[in-house]
Amino acid sequence: MNLTGPALAEGPETARIRAFLEGAGAAGGRTNPAVTVTLPVGDDAAGFRPPDGAQVVVSCDASVEGIHFRREWMTWETIGYRAAASALSDLAAMAATPVGLVVAAALPPELDVETAAALGRGVGEVSGRVGAEVLGGDLVASPGPAFLDVTVLGYAAAPTTRSGARPGDELWVTGELGAAAAALSDLERGLEPDPRARRAFDRPRPRIDEMLWLRDRVRVHAAIDLSDGVMRDARHLAAASEVALEVEADRLPAAPALEGFRRAPAGERLLLAGGEDYELLIAVPSGAMQGTARAFAVAFDLPLTRIGSAREGEGLTVSGRSNPALPAGFDHFEAGR
Amino acid sequence: MNLTGPALAEGPETARIRAFLEGAGAAGGRTNPAVTVTLPVGDDAAGFRPPDGAQVVVSCDASVEGIHFRREWMTWETIGYRAAASALSDLAAMAATPVGLVVAAALPPELDVETAAALGRGVGEVSGRVGAEVLGGDLVASPGPAFLDVTVLGYAAAPTTRSGARPGDELWVTGELGAAAAALSDLERGLEPDPRARRAFDRPRPRIDEMLWLRDRVRVHAAIDLSDGVMRDARHLAAASEVALEVEADRLPAAPALEGFRRAPAGERLLLAGGEDYELLIAVPSGAMQGTARAFAVAFDLPLTRIGSAREGEGLTVSGRSNPALPAGFDHFEAGR
Repeated sequence: MNLTGPALAEGPETARIRAFLEGAGAAGGRTNPAVTVTLPVGDDAAGFRPPDGAQVVVSCDASVEGIHFRREWMTWETIGYRAAASALSDLAAMAATPVGLVVAAALPPELDVETAAALGRGVGEVSGRVGAEVLGGDLVASPGPAFLDVTVLGYAAAPTTRSGARPGDELWVTGELGAAAAALSDLERGLEPDPRARRAFDRPRPRIDEMLWLRDRVRVHAAIDLSDGVMRDARHLAAASEVALEVEADRLPAAPALEGFRRAPAGERLLLAGGEDYELLIAVPSGAMQGTARAFAVAFDLPLTRIGSAREGEGLTVSGRSNPALPAGFDHFEAGR
Repeated sequence: MNLTGPALAEGPETARIRAFLEGAGAAGGRTNPAVTVTLPVGDDAAGFRPPDGAQVVVSCDASVEGIHFRREWMTWETIGYRAAASALSDLAAMAATPVGLVVAAALPPELDVETAAALGRGVGEVSGRVGAEVLGGDLVASPGPAFLDVTVLGYAAAPTTRSGARPGDELWVTGELGAAAAALSDLERGLEPDPRARRAFDRPRPRIDEMLWLRDRVRVHAAIDLSDGVMRDARHLAAASEVALEVEADRLPAAPALEGFRRAPAGERLLLAGGEDYELLIAVPSGAMQGTARAFAVAFDLPLTRIGSAREGEGLTVSGRSNPALPAGFDHFEAGR
């Protein structure tokens, strides 16, 4: 662990590490009173004590400049925010309470202290929002594209997995879909996205609070976060649970920012296959959401929508058409990807 | 978490992920009966349950091709081994019992399934040696130099930190020093290293078992692993503990592989400032090692050597000369780095 405090020798790397940590700290935010961070940043390793009986949940998420993000599309603050949000979203899917994260970053030499500070602010912003602390990390120089790896740590008494969906379950999804993909599609074509889409892309919300709320009220059989799009992630859930899933395309909660794409097959594609919404796809027993979905919408000002169901079998079927003008060739989504 | 099993869609990335995991699994090794890995590789996150009362200890270590390793100097197996060993060494310094690790790797597109498998074998070799499991990770493609980030997880009832050394303490070091630096020095000059140095460089041993053994027998006040060389790491320990440290150069246990360098100032430099030995520098109360050092040497077939002491003050002093032929200009080591 090299994200350390005053005990390190001075130098350009130390200056960047300090700037990163100060940026993350300045972002502030809430902390989790149930967890004791026993060893914060500054030693060979960091330490924390999870509540008795809890298991530790860990995941990591790597992103590379030019592949997963582009400097010309967003600030370094946004790059840091999105990298951490993507990793934290995996904790949300597991119904885990976040504790903290460690960040490894490889930055080209020309990226200065202000870059490190901006990265730190972005990581700190989303971490503070969900009660996670920056526990440490490593900042190194690289002659190649910038690289970020965020490892998140949390705990849960009984984590939710992808593999618990059963025939007869209902499939629900939090929030609205497609806005991040719409922003990405515009950026790729050199257009400035719709502001709502830009916001969804820049500042996705890991659905931590939402999932913990749901877990306390409903028996959640299985969950996965939508990082790769409904189609692909639903396939993962179906495969892990060994069930068939049917998604009704007309029920998918399309983000208003998708309106501009709505008349074209591209809109349908963004809705079904666009990723990076970081909403949650959840399987619950039939009828379990009775009353709960409305309470959820009120509590979080966020829709919770039933989009399909599980049955015996395997694979994914998408039925209906959210856009009746779609060409028949669009069936390739149904055939698999 | 994207290091997943059969539930993932097929593709070149999945093939590399599988190869990595199979490589890591094939390396085998011991597991830790005190820890339950509740959720292995294959979901959004992995999970484990530490023993009651333990705190979780976490650290990460990043390395970049061309900066921290070079393909022409070692196999991908060795690259994986060294990256994991370096991270695990941080757990050793904390007197933490390893649980597992998550690995993020960015590999250039031309690096194929065999590269991923070799990386996995190396990571699995050292992990299995200390009882850590590969819990997950992320493999992504990158147009730049290869990048590796290993995050290690362990637990301890009371982790050892860098900050507990007190005036009057004795400073001890495990093993022998300078062999890895000697190998690196030869490699940098295009020479094939002494086989003993090459072995020390390629297959460093995280001193996990050694530290846990010591912790059970001696009150260890402070520890740090020697990743950056005795001089630099002793300075970190002194600063964190707010004491002055005095190292007697004549006492430093020079590796036999340093012999070829012994007549030159370069040898002294490798011994004092060469890194990557991953031995441990430990502060214990005066007299505490009485009898224990010999038992340690017998138990691990490894020297344990007193190299100095702590007193009131700050900073590091190196006294004596392991090589009397050294020029006076060598004093810059004593003045600081």
